[in-house]
Amino acid sequence: MRIGAGTVYLVGAGPGAPDLITVKGMRLLLGADVILYDRLVSPELLQECSEHTELISVGKTPGKSSIAQEEINRILIDRALQGKSVVRLKGGDPFVFGRGGEEQESCRRAGIQCVVVPGVSSALAAPASVGIPLTYRGKSRHFVVVTAHSNGTGDSLDYQALASIDTIVILMGRSKLREICKSLIRAGKDPETPAACVEWATTEEQKVAVGSLRSIAGRADRIQLCPPVVTVIGEVAALAMASSTVENEYWQIVNRLSREIPSWQS
Amino acid sequence: MRIGAGTVYLVGAGPGAPDLITVKGMRLLLGADVILYDRLVSPELLQECSEHTELISVGKTPGKSSIAQEEINRILIDRALQGKSVVRLKGGDPFVFGRGGEEQESCRRAGIQCVVVPGVSSALAAPASVGIPLTYRGKSRHFVVVTAHSNGTGDSLDYQALASIDTIVILMGRSKLREICKSLIRAGKDPETPAACVEWATTEEQKVAVGSLRSIAGRADRIQLCPPVVTVIGEVAALAMASSTVENEYWQIVNRLSREIPSWQS
Repeated sequence: MRIGAGTVYLVGAGPGAPDLITVKGMRLLLGADVILYDRLVSPELLQECSEHTELISVGKTPGKSSIAQEEINRILIDRALQGKSVVRLKGGDPFVFGRGGEEQESCRRAGIQCVVVPGVSSALAAPASVGIPLTYRGKSRHFVVVTAHSNGTGDSLDYQALASIDTIVILMGRSKLREICKSLIRAGKDPETPAACVEWATTEEQKVAVGSLRSIAGRADRIQLCPPVVTVIGEVAALAMASSTVENEYWQIVNRLSREIPSWQS
Repeated sequence: MRIGAGTVYLVGAGPGAPDLITVKGMRLLLGADVILYDRLVSPELLQECSEHTELISVGKTPGKSSIAQEEINRILIDRALQGKSVVRLKGGDPFVFGRGGEEQESCRRAGIQCVVVPGVSSALAAPASVGIPLTYRGKSRHFVVVTAHSNGTGDSLDYQALASIDTIVILMGRSKLREICKSLIRAGKDPETPAACVEWATTEEQKVAVGSLRSIAGRADRIQLCPPVVTVIGEVAALAMASSTVENEYWQIVNRLSREIPSWQS
């Protein structure tokens, strides 16, 4: 694959397991001059990169002072203007939360080519990892994906509207889970609606709590679920299995791929 | 990768471009004994499979008599009971529409191990392919994914609820687009809300129409957009670009991978 000099690639790393990155994303990682990566990106992916690749951690740890978005944008543009191929590696999909849209905009304004490489979002993969389909004939004809994180805008969510959607997927909502569930019940959602929380979905650390809209926050507390957690609320959550259906296997293939870097870069 | 004998893998093929399959999905394809594939799955992916792999087309063509879901379930279980490794290759993500949940259920009932391998959904990738992020600070804090296809259940959609969600993504809605837009306007959605339709997203056939909730159906007609089409309605749709940001490159890498099948199967 010819990787564009002076181009910024916004690449989705997938939901956690390293082999859930796309083939295209993997090729870009192996050939990039510079990689800016998030905190939740699988370390195994970075270990496979060339030793000549500049790796820059730009992860934001909740509650800690960390690199500003403007600084990330500045590094992306700076390296691209140096003629380098730049991968911005983001957890999940680059355009589902995580400010990928803003990064694309700032590249555009600077006249830098920006290519989006979609990834598997944890909004879909976390439910799937415990056997929950987000749609199901007769049970779920639509799903909404929402973050509890208001990013400083202070807006409160329209729980009435959310409660009317068959299946609700909440990202980054661990600390506000109890409050969200109460608000949905107040907005008319049946307290007995099935619900599930998945921590570190698709990885070896995966843990799951299952229950109802009424009980799920307590159950998540009891087994001490910590972020990153994805919560699913809806009839389909009743299909959750205690054990994972996404296998977490030893990460062999990338080891093979990395030995072949020279031919991949041709 | 050890591929399980007697196991059914529900694998997402991604949104269209063959290299948007996951690394894990690709490995399973190359090692499977049997592959049951949908109509919208990229033919390039199948060309890379071993000649010993049994390929079964189970695509449903709209408006034509086609293989029943029960027959698909029967073949999955039959081949798995023969001790074969079975890949059910589905367009996009296996659990977003497309009845993956039902396939999982019938495997479970038959005592067959069923593993879900998530894929990049066109619900996310089609907007991304024209530069539309589904979430954006201050513009979109949630998105809903919905099909216009009622699958014979006859239920009508709750447009009031849909209209209250920041961003609406409609799959399989081409033939009902005009009706859906009118219903959303009647439900209170601003007719000037930006909208975009993407046909055959991420492939060389990709076409895009941009406009507003009021104008998009007419524009899609004018450039004769045909299914598969993904429609996005919301402020973020104003970020659509006329040209694609997802590169559609020559499909080299799988050719390389397929030459290495022996080592991949070890």
